[in-house]
Amino acid sequence: MSETLQSWNDTGTKQAILEFVNAVSTENGPHYVPPVERIATFDNDGTLWCEQPVPVQVMAALSGLAMAVEQNPALGEKPLYRAAVNKDLAWFAPYMSNERIPELIGMMLEAGAGETQADFESRITAWLETARHPRFGTPYTQVIYQPMVELLDFLRDNDFRVFIVSGGGMDFIRLFSETIYGIQRENVVGSNMNLSWEYQDGGPLLVRQAGLVEPFNDGPGKPVNIQLHVGRPPILVGGNSDGDVPMMEFAAAGSKPFLNLLVHHDDAEREYASDHSAEQALKTAKERNWTIISMKDDFKVVFP
Amino acid sequence: MSETLQSWNDTGTKQAILEFVNAVSTENGPHYVPPVERIATFDNDGTLWCEQPVPVQVMAALSGLAMAVEQNPALGEKPLYRAAVNKDLAWFAPYMSNERIPELIGMMLEAGAGETQADFESRITAWLETARHPRFGTPYTQVIYQPMVELLDFLRDNDFRVFIVSGGGMDFIRLFSETIYGIQRENVVGSNMNLSWEYQDGGPLLVRQAGLVEPFNDGPGKPVNIQLHVGRPPILVGGNSDGDVPMMEFAAAGSKPFLNLLVHHDDAEREYASDHSAEQALKTAKERNWTIISMKDDFKVVFP
Repeated sequence: MSETLQSWNDTGTKQAILEFVNAVSTENGPHYVPPVERIATFDNDGTLWCEQPVPVQVMAALSGLAMAVEQNPALGEKPLYRAAVNKDLAWFAPYMSNERIPELIGMMLEAGAGETQADFESRITAWLETARHPRFGTPYTQVIYQPMVELLDFLRDNDFRVFIVSGGGMDFIRLFSETIYGIQRENVVGSNMNLSWEYQDGGPLLVRQAGLVEPFNDGPGKPVNIQLHVGRPPILVGGNSDGDVPMMEFAAAGSKPFLNLLVHHDDAEREYASDHSAEQALKTAKERNWTIISMKDDFKVVFP
Repeated sequence: MSETLQSWNDTGTKQAILEFVNAVSTENGPHYVPPVERIATFDNDGTLWCEQPVPVQVMAALSGLAMAVEQNPALGEKPLYRAAVNKDLAWFAPYMSNERIPELIGMMLEAGAGETQADFESRITAWLETARHPRFGTPYTQVIYQPMVELLDFLRDNDFRVFIVSGGGMDFIRLFSETIYGIQRENVVGSNMNLSWEYQDGGPLLVRQAGLVEPFNDGPGKPVNIQLHVGRPPILVGGNSDGDVPMMEFAAAGSKPFLNLLVHHDDAEREYASDHSAEQALKTAKERNWTIISMKDDFKVVFP
């Protein structure tokens, strides 16, 4: 058996995780939580994998838009499609905040409406095989944080049920969550296009629609969707941004012991350093004594 | 070890179940389905437990309405509340069809709006402890179909992941699914009130809202919500009514072997006999060679 959390440095953070898991797993102990209640929820972008310089799903969507222009060149006149074809990330930059990303997602949903669920899955699966991270040169499925992957394993070894609760696309994340995180599709909660069940010539099928399933899975949408998909509050939450604070509050508002872990991007050398869209989360975590993970100090290695 | 499916008679139905599960579990066999794809979805009312003479959730809701009148007698002037106080089931009868039950649910949602999630859970849990089935005299949590409960166990023993996919309330079913079916809350998909995350004096909490989460989880809403909550089609479906046909079509439209099981209520002596709201399902099942479970012939016992 490999050492527990071997890619973590021996800091207070690792200690806090070990102590919490031990406490809730100790039957007859004062902090025992029965397995049925051991729910852990993790954000994905910036918490389990790298979200810089641009969230991975945005890169996948750009590729989809460029493919659409190849098939229908007239689309290339539209600013969104033109920016996608030119890989003009500066055009997209103003949307990269928790406040404005829903706008961009809205445009992309409009562009993606009418695609069958099966076509979407094939297109994204093919894209993931060839796409590479612009800085690290590896497939996106390898810019995952090795210490966090070990944490997911450690939690499952201690009878936690581990969920992703991401602002990103549920259908998108599900195409790799099983292979890279060991998280089954049904344990992925995210934002998603509306779907319709349609009877077409070849038989009934699911078709993706322009609208988003409500609520958008960020900020206050996270506790709501955790209730709808999981049915009870988490006792351990991992996040990295302001949009993760409400699900941490959900854990804190329960009657059980809890551990909130905020991943702080403070390692420009090995990954990125930025507090963008995390200012409020860092402030709240400090005020409430939630655990801040310093990637620089707490991660022995970053990527696998 | 107890005999497999011991509460089933040795009929073709039991044989079909055993053969299907054996086929999809036989590695290197022609019909093998890897465990990750072994998804089973079951309707609840009329499929796993008795829905006659009135769906259990309706009885719970009537009790909630009557409690509201006790606290605010003026409400007793409204027809819905008056019918609830008088246990006037005839007033509710016209709504007991797949087409009209959403209307009734709409009225009840309106009545239930503003309740906190915690209060809802306490109220329903207390009700379930004292309420009794009008004909059988037992708690509602005991009018479950023993052969079906054994089927759930048998599927899990063969690495299936078992979900409830019910037109009924997700939050309602989750309060007993773990204890009576061994189905964890996150594996229950159903209709549900919208929820909001609110910051009140005592801290943040979930509050139930009048609207329903879209789509309503019946008919074409079932494949849509299976995709949203589970992320892939089922290979085994259990249902009993017209509203279950689309999720059976979802299984049939996939590329995997599948088994659709339609529970036919043909046992007036031990349970109820009625094809109400199941006419289309029975016709479709016969045309497409789906498996019809005759409660009369296939169930050795009905209730535990």
